[in-house]
Amino acid sequence: MYVKKCFNIKLNIIMAMNEIDLVEKAADTDYDIHELLQQRWSPRAFSDKPVDRELIRQLFDAARWAPSSYNEQPWRFIVATKDRPEEFERLSKVLNDHNRKWATGAPMLVLTVKKDHFEDDGRPNKVAKHDLGQAVSYLTFEATRHDLFVHQMAGILPRKARELYNIPEGFTPLTMIAVGYIGDMEQLPEDFREKEKAKRTRCSVDEIAFRGSWDDPKQL
Amino acid sequence: MYVKKCFNIKLNIIMAMNEIDLVEKAADTDYDIHELLQQRWSPRAFSDKPVDRELIRQLFDAARWAPSSYNEQPWRFIVATKDRPEEFERLSKVLNDHNRKWATGAPMLVLTVKKDHFEDDGRPNKVAKHDLGQAVSYLTFEATRHDLFVHQMAGILPRKARELYNIPEGFTPLTMIAVGYIGDMEQLPEDFREKEKAKRTRCSVDEIAFRGSWDDPKQL
Repeated sequence: MYVKKCFNIKLNIIMAMNEIDLVEKAADTDYDIHELLQQRWSPRAFSDKPVDRELIRQLFDAARWAPSSYNEQPWRFIVATKDRPEEFERLSKVLNDHNRKWATGAPMLVLTVKKDHFEDDGRPNKVAKHDLGQAVSYLTFEATRHDLFVHQMAGILPRKARELYNIPEGFTPLTMIAVGYIGDMEQLPEDFREKEKAKRTRCSVDEIAFRGSWDDPKQL
Repeated sequence: MYVKKCFNIKLNIIMAMNEIDLVEKAADTDYDIHELLQQRWSPRAFSDKPVDRELIRQLFDAARWAPSSYNEQPWRFIVATKDRPEEFERLSKVLNDHNRKWATGAPMLVLTVKKDHFEDDGRPNKVAKHDLGQAVSYLTFEATRHDLFVHQMAGILPRKARELYNIPEGFTPLTMIAVGYIGDMEQLPEDFREKEKAKRTRCSVDEIAFRGSWDDPKQL
């Protein structure tokens, strides 16, 4: 069965490396997919180098051109950069303890918030999370193009976010994102260093996409 | 307020054109964002030209390298192409009546399915839709790079999908996607032609991303 096969290969093979080899972290693809997709990965070690203000705006310019159901654009982003320490400290509080250990090393944090209902008729938007995910991908694609790395986290404190930022009903905090240039993994707490060296793995194409029925899948 | 301003600009300005001008459909961006993001849009008119089998596999190779929470990869795709008429007819039945009118003009349809729970411990995956949206974005980037267009639809019949494809509990059909090369809009039913000519609009960067609180947003 698909799922089973797929998760048998979900092993984290630790490589014998002292430093992060960006070539080694590139995706092991079947085809020559776009280099920005191939080279993207989610580091925990970020450099101190700040992200230029205009570049930050450019990332959200990319995000806003993602497609969405009824062009609802059910995505909002609260941003903090380390050069404004009070704002950065406040947004850091939305991370869970585990993620706070490494993500505060990034120069920029983003809280993603989904808009729950359609503006026109108030219906629940069942693809709001899906479309928010697309906007984040567009941001990531643009970031990667500018040598930035993006690490998304589902491990956040949504109630804390609502309270700290006065997020109204109808909007729901979903993830946090660390953005920055790649850093030295030696700066990380030890337990994170091993994760940083792990080989990236994915289910095969045949395990996620097929013709025919679920119980009798045929190769594309 | 953000939301209000944003939706005041959500007007569909119909352009006086008889043919789709791809330059005119490009996103009206503030910055020089990546051309694949700028040029992407969601047409309803597709050409008959089939999508090469290896290219189809390449699209899903791109999709599978999207990031996901705990590398869960909560995305599955059921695919049908027009050169296998029975399979295409079957997948077309999952479209709602409105979308069936135009989407069956595409040479390829994809049903997206989310995996509801984490494999390891059975917890509900609250970012499964979000991560599925990311995989679809990766597919879309790769498609756009190969002159393909992608049009996503939330308007589907999920129960029909489950029944026709024996989709088990724990997996939920979410969207359908039409994929193909651009076609002549004159082949579309008349009510769709006007939509095809509409200018693409988005909320501004300041309307979706900010520093500070929700009720006292500051410009990035």
